[in-house]
Amino acid sequence: MSLHEQKRVAIVGGSGYAGGEFLRLALGHPHLNVTQVTSERHAGTPVSLVHPNLRGRTTLKFRKAAELDEADIIVLALPHGHAAKRIGEFEGKARVIVDLSADFRLKDPEVYQATYGEAHPTPDALGNWVYGNPELHREDLRGAARIACAGCFATSVILALYPLLKLGVLLPKDIIATGLVGSSAAGASATDGSHHPERAGSLRVYKPVGHRHTAEAQQELPGHFPLHLTAISTPRVRGILTTAHAWIPDGYSDRDVWSAYREVYSQEPFIRIVKVAKGIHRYPDPMLLDGTNYCDLGFEMDLDTGRVVLMSAIDNLVKGTAGHAIQSLNIAFDWPETAGLEFAGLHPA
Amino acid sequence: MSLHEQKRVAIVGGSGYAGGEFLRLALGHPHLNVTQVTSERHAGTPVSLVHPNLRGRTTLKFRKAAELDEADIIVLALPHGHAAKRIGEFEGKARVIVDLSADFRLKDPEVYQATYGEAHPTPDALGNWVYGNPELHREDLRGAARIACAGCFATSVILALYPLLKLGVLLPKDIIATGLVGSSAAGASATDGSHHPERAGSLRVYKPVGHRHTAEAQQELPGHFPLHLTAISTPRVRGILTTAHAWIPDGYSDRDVWSAYREVYSQEPFIRIVKVAKGIHRYPDPMLLDGTNYCDLGFEMDLDTGRVVLMSAIDNLVKGTAGHAIQSLNIAFDWPETAGLEFAGLHPA
Amino acid sequence: MSLHEQKRVAIVGGSGYAGGEFLRLALGHPHLNVTQVTSERHAGTPVSLVHPNLRGRTTLKFRKAAELDEADIIVLALPHGHAAKRIGEFEGKARVIVDLSADFRLKDPEVYQATYGEAHPTPDALGNWVYGNPELHREDLRGAARIACAGCFATSVILALYPLLKLGVLLPKDIIATGLVGSSAAGASATDGSHHPERAGSLRVYKPVGHRHTAEAQQELPGHFPLHLTAISTPRVRGILTTAHAWIPDGYSDRDVWSAYREVYSQEPFIRIVKVAKGIHRYPDPMLLDGTNYCDLGFEMDLDTGRVVLMSAIDNLVKGTAGHAIQSLNIAFDWPETAGLEFAGLHPA
Amino acid sequence: MSLHEQKRVAIVGGSGYAGGEFLRLALGHPHLNVTQVTSERHAGTPVSLVHPNLRGRTTLKFRKAAELDEADIIVLALPHGHAAKRIGEFEGKARVIVDLSADFRLKDPEVYQATYGEAHPTPDALGNWVYGNPELHREDLRGAARIACAGCFATSVILALYPLLKLGVLLPKDIIATGLVGSSAAGASATDGSHHPERAGSLRVYKPVGHRHTAEAQQELPGHFPLHLTAISTPRVRGILTTAHAWIPDGYSDRDVWSAYREVYSQEPFIRIVKVAKGIHRYPDPMLLDGTNYCDLGFEMDLDTGRVVLMSAIDNLVKGTAGHAIQSLNIAFDWPETAGLEFAGLHPA
Repeated sequence: MSLHEQKRVAIVGGSGYAGGEFLRLALGHPHLNVTQVTSERHAGTPVSLVHPNLRGRTTLKFRKAAELDEADIIVLALPHGHAAKRIGEFEGKARVIVDLSADFRLKDPEVYQATYGEAHPTPDALGNWVYGNPELHREDLRGAARIACAGCFATSVILALYPLLKLGVLLPKDIIATGLVGSSAAGASATDGSHHPERAGSLRVYKPVGHRHTAEAQQELPGHFPLHLTAISTPRVRGILTTAHAWIPDGYSDRDVWSAYREVYSQEPFIRIVKVAKGIHRYPDPMLLDGTNYCDLGFEMDLDTGRVVLMSAIDNLVKGTAGHAIQSLNIAFDWPETAGLEFAGLHPA
Repeated sequence: MSLHEQKRVAIVGGSGYAGGEFLRLALGHPHLNVTQVTSERHAGTPVSLVHPNLRGRTTLKFRKAAELDEADIIVLALPHGHAAKRIGEFEGKARVIVDLSADFRLKDPEVYQATYGEAHPTPDALGNWVYGNPELHREDLRGAARIACAGCFATSVILALYPLLKLGVLLPKDIIATGLVGSSAAGASATDGSHHPERAGSLRVYKPVGHRHTAEAQQELPGHFPLHLTAISTPRVRGILTTAHAWIPDGYSDRDVWSAYREVYSQEPFIRIVKVAKGIHRYPDPMLLDGTNYCDLGFEMDLDTGRVVLMSAIDNLVKGTAGHAIQSLNIAFDWPETAGLEFAGLHPA
Repeated sequence: MSLHEQKRVAIVGGSGYAGGEFLRLALGHPHLNVTQVTSERHAGTPVSLVHPNLRGRTTLKFRKAAELDEADIIVLALPHGHAAKRIGEFEGKARVIVDLSADFRLKDPEVYQATYGEAHPTPDALGNWVYGNPELHREDLRGAARIACAGCFATSVILALYPLLKLGVLLPKDIIATGLVGSSAAGASATDGSHHPERAGSLRVYKPVGHRHTAEAQQELPGHFPLHLTAISTPRVRGILTTAHAWIPDGYSDRDVWSAYREVYSQEPFIRIVKVAKGIHRYPDPMLLDGTNYCDLGFEMDLDTGRVVLMSAIDNLVKGTAGHAIQSLNIAFDWPETAGLEFAGLHPA
Repeated sequence: MSLHEQKRVAIVGGSGYAGGEFLRLALGHPHLNVTQVTSERHAGTPVSLVHPNLRGRTTLKFRKAAELDEADIIVLALPHGHAAKRIGEFEGKARVIVDLSADFRLKDPEVYQATYGEAHPTPDALGNWVYGNPELHREDLRGAARIACAGCFATSVILALYPLLKLGVLLPKDIIATGLVGSSAAGASATDGSHHPERAGSLRVYKPVGHRHTAEAQQELPGHFPLHLTAISTPRVRGILTTAHAWIPDGYSDRDVWSAYREVYSQEPFIRIVKVAKGIHRYPDPMLLDGTNYCDLGFEMDLDTGRVVLMSAIDNLVKGTAGHAIQSLNIAFDWPETAGLEFAGLHPA
């Protein structure tokens, strides 16, 4: 790799929040050069009209997907279901394809069908895709040509649970995880539910049971245990705070959770364990993570009952989507893993 | 009037925020009996599905406007421009009509045309309508059969300025008023601008110049002076905080403003002068007014420059729309003026 | 009871949010006449300076507790621990005492000590107090002279679970409840954690394990099962949304939950079951309840796993504190149960 | 200058928001090496406990100011009034001193006294300080050893008005500017007014007249005209949106404002003119600027009345304080002017 290597990136479906966030991060990345952004609705318009934070940062204009030229990397930021159906359009155009949707995350076509309610259009291709979670699949990501970025809620659940399940710190009992989710997770299109007067003060359970990310999380997490996800919308715009209730064996203590996290994550650049004895910032809080690629993890234990409350916080658009994708590309191309992801986050925020 | 007199009310266009708020207030009013609520889109649906605060409060269902039966009072809560065009549909159905839109507020058809960009469909009828601002038109409202409810921003401006202009406490110089407005003022329909992620953190100037309520305010306010309105949207859902910069003659002081407000408003049940020397609630704040019919007024003077900063706060949906309408009906029917408008507001809120 | 009966009320510790909310409700109550409000810090000051929503509603001034005169009802709104220590001061001053704190809720002094970390100062008196939850203790409340108002988070948990546990709809397995709580629950005093820049955007787990309301909830709920509570602060000011994960026996379905709720709550004036198939207001949402005495309940079932997600929403200061107290007094004095609690809540809000 | 030159920075008073923000920016700056941060209250504590966004970013601990060692640059982030009184402590410790307070901004000791109510402790030193506004004083900043950072509200006013006043596009009439300000502007200490339940929903006029930044703005702006400032707090944490009402001569139009801004600001890296014909992001909005050093400017004209509404948006802690300081240092040391200030801002946010 040359110090000055730059790869040409095309973002397909770049007017939404995931595509816009990838664009923001890529514009600040030393090895990425965004040369094309597509949007059917906004073709011909400067991208900075749709992503006003990028005023003065880029002169790119949206083009139609049909006008896509060659690139080194194509990033698909299409609505769920579209990437799989249209993958043929893109495969000849770039060596590396990153998909931000759910289309290529699940390995088992039957699980896909059970989860998304229709047969996968290219079931044989599923094996070619690496699940884009750097902490679990760093080795697979090196040199990868197909990266299926992990889902945001799934990421917050997986990163909290993985070390503990891997190292046997949890009992194989029901795990109940609740995600408190910001409004950006539902995308850039206005709906009745996203109308500000209906949403600004709301705490709204939008997926009490049957959340689709359950399948992803179960695919990635070791062991057999029932996993239950509930999702609640909050007045925040970005961020997910997940609390997961799990069960530790008799005789286990804080130390065991600490050491499991340390063993698995001590070298991870974007995982921080947040568990402070006093003050107001004792546990993970998505307030501190807007724009960052961190996943902050914390926990507290109830020794009387064996319950451990795991907590994880991420920015759903960064560590939950676009930052994840950048981090995966950094690994795939052997660039410094934190390249383009240096933002520390704001306080106060 | 019997103590138990009840008038039948029909609300036309009852699925929006103005109609819903009128309905909420009317359901708690001793002399109003809402018998019909129309909505083309929701006909057949219980009103409490659209206005979920009314669960358990009413079993009314929406009907189509074409099915409207007789009533004593019809309240029109239609989009601007519709009431005037369709007024013929309603005139035979009830003795009293209250319009919550801007259609019948302006007396002068030419001003209407200049303001709203089209000729008024029934210019000759404009003289029949009383401008529904109880503080200025209480006598005209007694027994009135046509009430055109004052606009929300206009109300906040008029109530702050009226006593001072009437009693000569202000110089005939430019008055600059800025309204900080909640998102409910733009209505119940989702738009790109009302999408929560775009609106939650926004401070957005949406009408720097040319606000249509200027015409209303100038019609109602005594004297000749240039009035300039600017409207900015805020992260609140309800409420308007207006600050108006005006100019006092040499030698005038706080006392003159106080006494003008007292002279004109001392008997007003919904006007409060808020000007406290210390503490955190020194001036009007819409935070305290959600759901109430109050207009809180305050001011501060800069004796060095002759500038006085007038402040007024209202709930745009109550004192700015539906509460105003109820208060006007209370006067029209000689009911206690505060009937149905007793809610004190919340603290904290 | 005379139609015009009025009882004199004294509020002790009336400058906080609980006392202020009781005052607001009592001022609108046909049978309550607030004659005294105490505050050591604000003695001599008009109550409306501290509770600015009450401007123009009352001319009461705070006095010191030492100056307390006789009343019919004393409402104690003191910090936890103070009411029990000072109860002797108040017992001769009024026949009926209502305590809004946690001091007299627990029947068992040992549980009190285990929960609050010190011996109860008047353990023998605990039996005289009725737990102020009207839905569970209506008969005990009739004529009661000592009412210990239920805690806010406890109330939201108890009301969601009680019918299902009573009627055997739940398995005796772990129940995990998460409360999303507004900032007013922490009281009226500014702290590092309540500083707006630190709190406005925060989702902060403040009590992952060991919440004190566990003891209350377990005292009141029938059956033996492990109950786990987690509390998270949200950007809202008022309101609690509780989701409780519990387990249903094989073969049970929605119908069983519905019928349990109906059997127990069908006559309850402040309980609403909210479970709508479509639209954006499908489940309980505290957004709709600010200022109201409602507890909205909902649920959703995962038949594959036997998990049921119960949801309950309240305003922590009303159904969670002061409204609860008013409702209990209405029962104690045989007044209409909804007297003073008629506010429907706002939409939008 | 070497490509790898690094200057040692000491931040005095580093536990507040201004100092914390400077620290965040400095940690990402290629030429700044923060070696010391002082806080009397937190001495001995890791800075990341107070500024939790910096977890994993620095191992610095607070020390007491008395333990201050030599540095190349000292940044004073002390409460207003302290820097001037204690300046002697710092002058021998570093060649370059940057003050973030108001202490050294005003050139005229009499204006200082009239504004801040006490005599300046070192009036003779005032002439040594450069007013830290890069757009107006770039040449003075080159090599400067004393930089008094411009105030946040003053900056938003000055940058909007300066080109128009300089080039004669405005009449010498009253200019009325309203600043909508986030809660972080009041600092990191909890107060009654910053208590979340009292602030979250508030729109609070906190300085209707007599704002101290008037003196700064008048010192920096060319020409003689009355300037009136009003400040209102909003529910945002960061950001200022200023609207200024000014007056244009007959015959002037949009073009004149455009060309004045272009003439003065076309080379400015942090000034953007935002005036878009359609869409929802037509004017400056602080929502888009959190964490960035931009000042976005816009305007709209009312040709009928000659009023122009100027709009400016900044992040009060960045372009209004710490970013300004970094930009000034970049100029002083001849580093690239955008070094350390590259963050584009988030959308959505």
